[in-house]
Amino acid sequence: MAEERIIIKDQHTKEIDLVNRDPKHINEDVVKVDFEDVIAEPVGTYSFDGVWKTSYTTFTVSKYWCYRLLSAVLGIPLAVLWGFLFALISFCHIWAVVPCIKSYLIEIQCVSRIYSLCIHTFCDPLFEALAKICSNIRVAVRKEI
Amino acid sequence: MAEERIIIKDQHTKEIDLVNRDPKHINEDVVKVDFEDVIAEPVGTYSFDGVWKTSYTTFTVSKYWCYRLLSAVLGIPLAVLWGFLFALISFCHIWAVVPCIKSYLIEIQCVSRIYSLCIHTFCDPLFEALAKICSNIRVAVRKEI
Amino acid sequence: MAEERIIIKDQHTKEIDLVNRDPKHINEDVVKVDFEDVIAEPVGTYSFDGVWKTSYTTFTVSKYWCYRLLSAVLGIPLAVLWGFLFALISFCHIWAVVPCIKSYLIEIQCVSRIYSLCIHTFCDPLFEALAKICSNIRVAVRKEI
Amino acid sequence: MAEERIIIKDQHTKEIDLVNRDPKHINEDVVKVDFEDVIAEPVGTYSFDGVWKTSYTTFTVSKYWCYRLLSAVLGIPLAVLWGFLFALISFCHIWAVVPCIKSYLIEIQCVSRIYSLCIHTFCDPLFEALAKICSNIRVAVRKEI
Amino acid sequence: MAEERIIIKDQHTKEIDLVNRDPKHINEDVVKVDFEDVIAEPVGTYSFDGVWKTSYTTFTVSKYWCYRLLSAVLGIPLAVLWGFLFALISFCHIWAVVPCIKSYLIEIQCVSRIYSLCIHTFCDPLFEALAKICSNIRVAVRKEI
Amino acid sequence: MAEERIIIKDQHTKEIDLVNRDPKHINEDVVKVDFEDVIAEPVGTYSFDGVWKTSYTTFTVSKYWCYRLLSAVLGIPLAVLWGFLFALISFCHIWAVVPCIKSYLIEIQCVSRIYSLCIHTFCDPLFEALAKICSNIRVAVRKEI
Amino acid sequence: MAEERIIIKDQHTKEIDLVNRDPKHINEDVVKVDFEDVIAEPVGTYSFDGVWKTSYTTFTVSKYWCYRLLSAVLGIPLAVLWGFLFALISFCHIWAVVPCIKSYLIEIQCVSRIYSLCIHTFCDPLFEALAKICSNIRVAVRKEI
Amino acid sequence: MAEERIIIKDQHTKEIDLVNRDPKHINEDVVKVDFEDVIAEPVGTYSFDGVWKTSYTTFTVSKYWCYRLLSAVLGIPLAVLWGFLFALISFCHIWAVVPCIKSYLIEIQCVSRIYSLCIHTFCDPLFEALAKICSNIRVAVRKEI
Amino acid sequence: MAEERIIIKDQHTKEIDLVNRDPKHINEDVVKVDFEDVIAEPVGTYSFDGVWKTSYTTFTVSKYWCYRLLSAVLGIPLAVLWGFLFALISFCHIWAVVPCIKSYLIEIQCVSRIYSLCIHTFCDPLFEALAKICSNIRVAVRKEI
Amino acid sequence: MAEERIIIKDQHTKEIDLVNRDPKHINEDVVKVDFEDVIAEPVGTYSFDGVWKTSYTTFTVSKYWCYRLLSAVLGIPLAVLWGFLFALISFCHIWAVVPCIKSYLIEIQCVSRIYSLCIHTFCDPLFEALAKICSNIRVAVRKEI
Amino acid sequence: MAEERIIIKDQHTKEIDLVNRDPKHINEDVVKVDFEDVIAEPVGTYSFDGVWKTSYTTFTVSKYWCYRLLSAVLGIPLAVLWGFLFALISFCHIWAVVPCIKSYLIEIQCVSRIYSLCIHTFCDPLFEALAKICSNIRVAVRKEI
Repeated sequence: MAEERIIIKDQHTKEIDLVNRDPKHINEDVVKVDFEDVIAEPVGTYSFDGVWKTSYTTFTVSKYWCYRLLSAVLGIPLAVLWGFLFALISFCHIWAVVPCIKSYLIEIQCVSRIYSLCIHTFCDPLFEALAKICSNIRVAVRKEI
Repeated sequence: MAEERIIIKDQHTKEIDLVNRDPKHINEDVVKVDFEDVIAEPVGTYSFDGVWKTSYTTFTVSKYWCYRLLSAVLGIPLAVLWGFLFALISFCHIWAVVPCIKSYLIEIQCVSRIYSLCIHTFCDPLFEALAKICSNIRVAVRKEI
Repeated sequence: MAEERIIIKDQHTKEIDLVNRDPKHINEDVVKVDFEDVIAEPVGTYSFDGVWKTSYTTFTVSKYWCYRLLSAVLGIPLAVLWGFLFALISFCHIWAVVPCIKSYLIEIQCVSRIYSLCIHTFCDPLFEALAKICSNIRVAVRKEI
Repeated sequence: MAEERIIIKDQHTKEIDLVNRDPKHINEDVVKVDFEDVIAEPVGTYSFDGVWKTSYTTFTVSKYWCYRLLSAVLGIPLAVLWGFLFALISFCHIWAVVPCIKSYLIEIQCVSRIYSLCIHTFCDPLFEALAKICSNIRVAVRKEI
Repeated sequence: MAEERIIIKDQHTKEIDLVNRDPKHINEDVVKVDFEDVIAEPVGTYSFDGVWKTSYTTFTVSKYWCYRLLSAVLGIPLAVLWGFLFALISFCHIWAVVPCIKSYLIEIQCVSRIYSLCIHTFCDPLFEALAKICSNIRVAVRKEI
Repeated sequence: MAEERIIIKDQHTKEIDLVNRDPKHINEDVVKVDFEDVIAEPVGTYSFDGVWKTSYTTFTVSKYWCYRLLSAVLGIPLAVLWGFLFALISFCHIWAVVPCIKSYLIEIQCVSRIYSLCIHTFCDPLFEALAKICSNIRVAVRKEI
Repeated sequence: MAEERIIIKDQHTKEIDLVNRDPKHINEDVVKVDFEDVIAEPVGTYSFDGVWKTSYTTFTVSKYWCYRLLSAVLGIPLAVLWGFLFALISFCHIWAVVPCIKSYLIEIQCVSRIYSLCIHTFCDPLFEALAKICSNIRVAVRKEI
Repeated sequence: MAEERIIIKDQHTKEIDLVNRDPKHINEDVVKVDFEDVIAEPVGTYSFDGVWKTSYTTFTVSKYWCYRLLSAVLGIPLAVLWGFLFALISFCHIWAVVPCIKSYLIEIQCVSRIYSLCIHTFCDPLFEALAKICSNIRVAVRKEI
Repeated sequence: MAEERIIIKDQHTKEIDLVNRDPKHINEDVVKVDFEDVIAEPVGTYSFDGVWKTSYTTFTVSKYWCYRLLSAVLGIPLAVLWGFLFALISFCHIWAVVPCIKSYLIEIQCVSRIYSLCIHTFCDPLFEALAKICSNIRVAVRKEI
Repeated sequence: MAEERIIIKDQHTKEIDLVNRDPKHINEDVVKVDFEDVIAEPVGTYSFDGVWKTSYTTFTVSKYWCYRLLSAVLGIPLAVLWGFLFALISFCHIWAVVPCIKSYLIEIQCVSRIYSLCIHTFCDPLFEALAKICSNIRVAVRKEI
Repeated sequence: MAEERIIIKDQHTKEIDLVNRDPKHINEDVVKVDFEDVIAEPVGTYSFDGVWKTSYTTFTVSKYWCYRLLSAVLGIPLAVLWGFLFALISFCHIWAVVPCIKSYLIEIQCVSRIYSLCIHTFCDPLFEALAKICSNIRVAVRKEI
């Protein structure tokens, strides 16, 4: 019971990293949507300077606060939900699915041996006979200069 | 909270580059539509000099001001719209889609193992028998001089 | 009878390893569902610090206790069930299936020899004749400089 | 008759090996179903220590005794049954099947020679003509630098 | 605003090159239709000298003035039209199409991962089994002298 | 007549080998059904010692006596039957089938020559023409570094 | 305007070459129809000398004058017609077709990117799985001497 | 007539070989049916010694006398029959079939030449055109290290 | 006009070669029909000497005079006819067909560019995906000694 | 006429070879039907000596005289028949068939040239275009160690 | 006219070769039908000597005189017929067919160029796209020792 507590404590007291929030690089490349990645004007077709500046600011601000509010409202309930779900999946996988596969594996081997014998008995002579087609290839190679 | 403010400030106070408006080269090669890229007269079929000059000027000016007016009127509302949209997409992707994929990944592995065993049990002997067709190729090579 | 007792005792008195509970690495890679593996925020789309911290804690705790309770209630009955099942499978496999396969193996060999003779009698001449198509290939190779 | 008795005696007085009961490794890899092979908990999703210990014990004990009782009740009748069955199969194979195959082998050879002549008479010219398609391949290879 | 004016001025005051009117070689090879490229008399079938001379002159002159008049009448309106059109295309491409593609790109990646997993789960074992057909090729090469 | 008698005597007085009863290894590998080949218990799933010993003995004894009785009752009639049958087959093969094949062989050669001429007359030009498809292959090989 | 006049003058005062009337070798090889190219008598089947001489002369003269008259009557109107036609084609190509292609080129690129992503998303995993068929080829080469 | 008589005498007075009755090895391998070739008991499944000895004797004797009686009764009539038949076949083949083939061979050559010309006239250009498909193969080989 | 006359004179005063009437070898190999090329008697089947001589003479003489009369009657009208026909063909080809092809060539290039873009846009991603099938070939070569 | 007589005399006075009656080896291998080629008894299945001797004699004698009588009765009429037939065939072939082929050969060449031009005109561009499929093969070879 | 006469004289006074009547070897191999080529008796099946001698003589004589009479009666009319026929064919070929082919050749070239352009315009992009399938082949070769 002591070991257990240590592990739990270890998990709970681990300082949560607030700066780097994607240590395993899951979403880094996919969700990259700054203003530069989305809107750009090539040389020769420039809009007014004021329009450009305002566009930049409004895009950045609206995206920033919209995300914050959504995560503040829906983040914690979703975290609890995923917690329960993954616990359930883990339990099913460990106690039910893996033993099932194991017993199925023993049974399939018997079927496999009998089936394999039949196939080899009835198909092998036929295909060995077919192999005769390729057993007499003669190639005469002549090099022209 | 301090770190957060710094990042936000960093994003907001970053001087907007008004000269190079496509730092990631998204539209540079595609949207290149000067007069020289569009209209050209080969040697031997020249129009009057005055006609050529006027054509050049009218094309350049009409394209320039038409774009400016359109961006002045529609640019800022579109920037706000894209800001909200990308915030929504980011939130869905981070809090809903990725965990879903994760749990789906665990379930698919069980199915995969059972399915793989069946396939290997019933197809392997058949295809090993088929392989006999190619197992007796005899090639006689004769070099003619 | 002495040997038997030793084996049984050996199995029963073997100290159960409470720390490493997966010595044969069956579930190690599949069931890996910590908070970092499931939810991540890339640079530029961070939620409030408090929201992030609370999410982390609620996910970890809910997953942890949910699994514990499930295994405490359902673990031991399932263990007994699997014990009986695997004993039954072992007995069938040892005393019934393997001798059956053995006797079937003797019978199939007779069928196999007669069948093989028929196939070789009727297919071999046909395919040897077909082999003539490939027996007169002439290739003239000329190297251009 | 003396030789016979020696062989029988040899078979009967041969000391039965009670420790290694699978000298020809027929079932060794297939029927391997200890607790470690079937149930395992990866790091991070551990059940209570008591639950884990009890599961281990109940699985091992239930499997062990269930198999013993089954073999004690059904083992000897099955052994007698298989004894009679294999004697019958041996007799049929030695005195009826093998001579049958032998006589069939003589008859098939006559059919085979006539059939083979027909095939070679009517198919060979056709396929030799087909072989002309491949008898004039000219390949000019040019190495570009 | 100063930078803007400079660019505009730079575009407007750039001396228009009246001699080389196809600096990017767009129409040079295609629109090449002098008298020599179109009409030619081989040795042995010559028309009268006067006929030949008059043909040359009338072809050159009629082509020359016909083109001049057409461009003088239709050139400038077409230039204005193309100016407006390309401004519109540029605006749509920059402010609407590229952001759309960006958001579509994030969504497609999720679909892609799930779809890819399904395909690999269900097709891989089948095709690995099929691969056995090619895994036992035996080639016996004999060099005839 | 003297030679004949010698051969017959030689056949009859040849000492019958009672120990090695399969000098040409016809049934050696196929009919191998001792207790070890049929029933085996892997480590971890052992039955009671007494049960195992009794199983071994009953299987061996029942198989042994069952075969003896069957061969004593049915062996000699079957030997006479096979004797007559093989004499009949030999006679038919020597005096009727082989001369038939010989005469058939002369007749088939006439048919063969005419048929072969037809085939070569009508198919050869066609296939020689088809061979032109492969007579102009040009391969340019470029090695990239 | 000075440059223009020079070019025009250059075109108009360029001395027309009356001897070599096909400087770009357009019709040289095709329209070659002297008497020797059309009518020939092999050794052994000669007509009367007078007949041969008269045939030669009548063919050459009739061909010569027939062409001259046709070109004198129809040559100049055709030259004017082709002059107008090529001026029209040049104008359409320069002022309408090329800008159209340019704008079409921008639009097709957007479609292309989205279409390409779809194809790669849905076809790549399938074909990568198909590639497994070829990923396990084993060739055993044996040289017979 | 003298030569003829010598040959006939040579054939008639040739001493008939009574020991080796198959000098051209026609039936040697096929008709081989001694007791050892037909019935065999592997180690472990032996019948009583008396049963085995009696089986051996009865098989050999019954086969031996059965064949003798059949050949004594039916041998000579069959020899006369085959004599007449082969004389008839020889006569037909020498005086009728071979001259027929000879005359047919002259006629087929005419047909062959005309047919061959047609085929080469109408198929060759088509297949030479088809050959162009293979006349421009470019292979770029890159060795990865 | 002087040059013209010289050419005409050159053509008209050129001495017509009466001996070699096929300087460009058009009909030399095709129209070769002497008596030796048509009728021949192999050794062993000779007709009477007189018959043979008369056949030779009648064939040669009848062929010789028949051709002379035909050419004398029909040669000159045909020469005039072909003269007019080839003049007409030359005129059409020079003044109508070649300019037509030229103008058609300009138009087809526009169509070609747009069509080519479509094809590359919609087919390339599909075929690049298909190319993945061949991108993972693994060949294990084993040399048997 | 002297030469003729010599040849005829040469043919008639040529001494006919009565011993080797097949100088060109036409029937040597085919019609080979002595007693040894037709009937043979392998070791172990011998008939009575008297039966064997009588069989040999009756077969040889009956075949010998049967053939003699047939050839004496039917040989000479058949020889006359074949003589007339081959004279007729020779005449047709020399005086009718070969000249026919010759004239047909001239006519087919005209058809051949026109047909060949059509085919090359309409099929070549299509197949050259098809050849592009093979003109860009890139093979990356990697040697695994 | 002198040259003509010389040629004619040369043809007429050329001494006709009565011995070698097939100087160009047209019928030498085909029409070879002596007695030895048609009828032959292998060793062992000889007819009476008288029968054989008479057969030889009657065949040779009947064939010889039958051919002589046929050629004497039908040879000269056929020679005249073939003479007229070949003169007619020569005339048609020289004065009508070859000029026709020539004019047809000029016309087909125009069609050919336009057709070829269409094919290359519409098929080339498609097949170049198809070529991408083969442009990414990766072969990993592993030598097993």
